[in-house]
Amino acid sequence: MTSSSHLHPLDEALQLAASAPGQYQGQTHPGYWNMVGPFGGITAATLLQAVMQHPDRLGEPLSLTVNYAGALAAGPFSVQATPVRTNRSTQHWTLSILQAGADGAQVVTTTATAVTAARRETWSVSDLPMPSVQPPAQHATVPPQVGTIEWLNRYEMRPIAGFIPEAWDGSGDHSLSQLWMRDAPPRPLDFCALAALADLFFPRVWLRRARHVPAGTVSITVYFHASSAQLQATGTGYLLGQARGQEFRNGFFDQTVQLWNEAGLMLATSHQIVYFKE
Amino acid sequence: MTSSSHLHPLDEALQLAASAPGQYQGQTHPGYWNMVGPFGGITAATLLQAVMQHPDRLGEPLSLTVNYAGALAAGPFSVQATPVRTNRSTQHWTLSILQAGADGAQVVTTTATAVTAARRETWSVSDLPMPSVQPPAQHATVPPQVGTIEWLNRYEMRPIAGFIPEAWDGSGDHSLSQLWMRDAPPRPLDFCALAALADLFFPRVWLRRARHVPAGTVSITVYFHASSAQLQATGTGYLLGQARGQEFRNGFFDQTVQLWNEAGLMLATSHQIVYFKE
Repeated sequence: MTSSSHLHPLDEALQLAASAPGQYQGQTHPGYWNMVGPFGGITAATLLQAVMQHPDRLGEPLSLTVNYAGALAAGPFSVQATPVRTNRSTQHWTLSILQAGADGAQVVTTTATAVTAARRETWSVSDLPMPSVQPPAQHATVPPQVGTIEWLNRYEMRPIAGFIPEAWDGSGDHSLSQLWMRDAPPRPLDFCALAALADLFFPRVWLRRARHVPAGTVSITVYFHASSAQLQATGTGYLLGQARGQEFRNGFFDQTVQLWNEAGLMLATSHQIVYFKE
Repeated sequence: MTSSSHLHPLDEALQLAASAPGQYQGQTHPGYWNMVGPFGGITAATLLQAVMQHPDRLGEPLSLTVNYAGALAAGPFSVQATPVRTNRSTQHWTLSILQAGADGAQVVTTTATAVTAARRETWSVSDLPMPSVQPPAQHATVPPQVGTIEWLNRYEMRPIAGFIPEAWDGSGDHSLSQLWMRDAPPRPLDFCALAALADLFFPRVWLRRARHVPAGTVSITVYFHASSAQLQATGTGYLLGQARGQEFRNGFFDQTVQLWNEAGLMLATSHQIVYFKE
């Protein structure tokens, strides 16, 4: 990937120009291209970016749900972000991405909702402590992928357990993956980067079956547990990501995800439901 | 609760009159009243009911996300259900509930998105088998609640583990609840009833802290794994519900939920993020 700017590729991809309140214009980024459209995580991050840029935003991200209605084509798109209700400490957003279809008419490619919240310090506890694993330096980085899925090269991944099967031989017997991960090149963590990282995991069905079947996220939800100050403190450090499937049934499976920073702080939890074939 | 019809209370509560395509009129039901508004589960079921009644619906529910922007007042409300994109096997919905505010203007109380899907039989497996517990008859039913939270009387609950603390003494040390549950009186299971049941659990923070602090769901997502035929086969049987908190932080916690039928079939998984005070 070549770039004409000095921005980090993620910041390039998340550039949105406001044409009216809550109306933004963006452009797909070749560096985050998947197979037939952008990496789902970059789409989620783009929607959150529209919320972050909105002049009327209250507080910081609490939840984000993104529904992938159709693949974005390479090129320009528009984002609509509307704060439909603002309470004293929470704000509710409806979001969508639209793109001109073959006949020039605007087509909805993505729908979403988000909640932002002004949070106060309270009693806090984790009921899901970070698993005990060796630090990032003890795990090898996945080498760059040439000529395959471009967005994979935008992340540094250091698998710990449950990486992509080496043989598609039907031998799978679990769906748990753990890995250290961060943007490549390293970039200070923020909410948009975290939203994208929540979608980093390859489809659980590949691991569970050791079969390379077509699969794609239909809907993802991210709950943000950290403040912007805690994300800043995480900086360019690694996140420990954990993903596990729950139920695989008749063309769809769901997965749960947890993301901790190296200090063991839970930054986000996430869930998604994913289409698979056969 | 008295009733003027011979319908099950859930069917009464879910009655929607179509005034235009995707536009429905409903009425809050005293039998499902919580403290300052309806039980969140009945609101989720009402939104799904609008999808189920829509003449253009494709397939059966796959996912539903409901964001509680503000409490509904007792009385009439309107539901908007729009299929914004229909693909070959999935359909994407945006939904909202509106109600007249104090000044007569329509106010959004609830936003939601849903995905319906035409599913085909494929390879299937569960990575989260039903916990081994004693059958429903071995667990006592919670007695009716008089003069407290009315909606609790619309459900039969047979706690197994992690029920509401008997003393609010700050002694809590976990957030896992398991119980057998079904509509009261018994009613054949369908997607709307299942959506409501996914929100049946009392706030995890009460269990984790053994403190009775104010709490309320901000956003819930339900993933449906069963077909209508499998729900029919479940009939009026009990569901085993399991809920567990993950992270409690600065005014919000999240929980994961699984719902199995007595035969051990996973019917739905769910998660929510919940506000709590102090």
